[in-house]
Amino acid sequence: MSDLVRVVVDAMGGDNAPAEIVKGAIAAVNSREDIYLILTGLKDAVERELKQYSYPADRVEVVPTTQVIETAEPPVAAIRTKKDSSIVVGLTMVRRGQADAFVSAGSSGAVLVGGQAIVGRIKGIERPALAPLIPTKDGVALLIDCGANVDARPSHLVQFAKMGSIYMEHVVGVKRPRVGIVNIGAEEEKGNALVKETFPLLKEQRDIHFTGSVEARDIPYGACDVVVCEAFVGNVILKLYEGVGAVMIKKIKGGLMTNLRTKLGAVLIKPALKRTLKAFDATEYGGAPLLGLKGLVVKTHGSSKAAEVEHSVYQCVQFKQQQISEKIEKAIHQNEETY
Amino acid sequence: MSDLVRVVVDAMGGDNAPAEIVKGAIAAVNSREDIYLILTGLKDAVERELKQYSYPADRVEVVPTTQVIETAEPPVAAIRTKKDSSIVVGLTMVRRGQADAFVSAGSSGAVLVGGQAIVGRIKGIERPALAPLIPTKDGVALLIDCGANVDARPSHLVQFAKMGSIYMEHVVGVKRPRVGIVNIGAEEEKGNALVKETFPLLKEQRDIHFTGSVEARDIPYGACDVVVCEAFVGNVILKLYEGVGAVMIKKIKGGLMTNLRTKLGAVLIKPALKRTLKAFDATEYGGAPLLGLKGLVVKTHGSSKAAEVEHSVYQCVQFKQQQISEKIEKAIHQNEETY
Repeated sequence: MSDLVRVVVDAMGGDNAPAEIVKGAIAAVNSREDIYLILTGLKDAVERELKQYSYPADRVEVVPTTQVIETAEPPVAAIRTKKDSSIVVGLTMVRRGQADAFVSAGSSGAVLVGGQAIVGRIKGIERPALAPLIPTKDGVALLIDCGANVDARPSHLVQFAKMGSIYMEHVVGVKRPRVGIVNIGAEEEKGNALVKETFPLLKEQRDIHFTGSVEARDIPYGACDVVVCEAFVGNVILKLYEGVGAVMIKKIKGGLMTNLRTKLGAVLIKPALKRTLKAFDATEYGGAPLLGLKGLVVKTHGSSKAAEVEHSVYQCVQFKQQQISEKIEKAIHQNEETY
Repeated sequence: MSDLVRVVVDAMGGDNAPAEIVKGAIAAVNSREDIYLILTGLKDAVERELKQYSYPADRVEVVPTTQVIETAEPPVAAIRTKKDSSIVVGLTMVRRGQADAFVSAGSSGAVLVGGQAIVGRIKGIERPALAPLIPTKDGVALLIDCGANVDARPSHLVQFAKMGSIYMEHVVGVKRPRVGIVNIGAEEEKGNALVKETFPLLKEQRDIHFTGSVEARDIPYGACDVVVCEAFVGNVILKLYEGVGAVMIKKIKGGLMTNLRTKLGAVLIKPALKRTLKAFDATEYGGAPLLGLKGLVVKTHGSSKAAEVEHSVYQCVQFKQQQISEKIEKAIHQNEETY
């Protein structure tokens, strides 16, 4: 079992649990032999889903739990009181080294709070960061941080830049990823107090490829690979991406139903349009890793279907095999010695 | 002349000056009889353009200037040293009461700095705000503030909410505009320090219709009419709107050129698609007013064509006739008395 990557999947998390979650997790374990899958969740519900598939029984394990954390629950209280929930049990397995990674489409708050409180931070990391991949014109960029802790300090942003670079290089496969800090102009003297303080610090770092400020307009064009910002701005960017995209698609579809001519045209372009829109859909890129923890925690969209869960499991394998946590620890440690 | 609204248009500002600027300004003066147009700019350049049109000569005046402020120039120095530029001369006319409004597609920095320094703030206004209209699913919303002054205080945001409400009600015609504060969750306890401090203050205001937090995802759906945020976040929202929209259009157009089938479909849907995308194009909605000044200053896109300049001039007329500055002054003054 030593070469297997052990991934816990929260079978109870998200709008489509447990059906789509189990389906995606099983698809992953069926297509790669280096995955050992652990499903946490209500025993009956999980087993009912499992019955529908054939899979290698020696690489799939169910860890039954009796509680479920709902999306609306206050996260800190939920983590504290629901010790036998699929989230707390899954995270505890990562903490104890019984698993390498945890994937959940459940409550963001609970996953973030639980990840920090149960799995724990890598030594030297001041604040873990939630870092989703967002689509760009011809690829993806990592948006770091979109977590729940706002009002970051410059030293946090410097660590985000390092962690993000390691992730983009070794998990996504971008050589020498370009790091940009979100700003309202290209010049170094522009920006709010946080950006102005962080900019020179980022310039000093020799282990990242800092390319300066990035204006929000240029993010979708793929102006940089690692988009650094504090979590309030990160959340605004992530959610506006979703909102603008969704509304434009709605408007375009509405426009195509105007008359017979456009309806006919719509039939002809439908497959191509669908492909295009899919390429620009954030949900296609697996989940968002919570970087800076001692093990990997991945948060996928609440609306995740099987494909996203499957991709998230592959992400975990890549993360483990590329020893990302070890690389982050080393990068942070090197940095401390420099000062 | 007392019933005429006197609008100064900077004929030298923007990528398409002077041709498109003069064209749009003349279109406005030709279609409404209540406009008196003043064009500031290099004499020869402006007159060369004017020659191409017929217009009521008694309502069009050229005020020749000898200097031009370039977009790349540091704004403060430019305003100070180029006293005979089209921007400084135009703003000075507003300050002296020789004109009611000033429209420019030129350097944002110079227009913002000059607006504050030359035209001056309404008494009681702590910080003027740049407030563009952004497209939503079925209409528009006012995004306030997108100016150059970041790191705002809660009291600034309260004033933005009041000024934005007045503008949306009396210029755009939205009855009882819904005011939302940009936040990363719907609950009152969410947000960064600024939002948490501002939220209860907004709740207290009886002269606005505050509807609580608005998540970035819901802005394009038209979740509120006045979107309040500090300028760093406002700039990110405005520019990301542009960027995501532009990249999606590029990708959709590319997808339509995939094969013969899609090309044929593209021909059929082209007019409908164009209309749809146009409705979601921020440049269609005239310029962004700089609210809180003693006269009206409108900044239009650097890439403005005639149509945007024309709309911006109409915006000025509406602004003047609805006595927006007076209404803002009254609202701020009332507020001071409350405390």
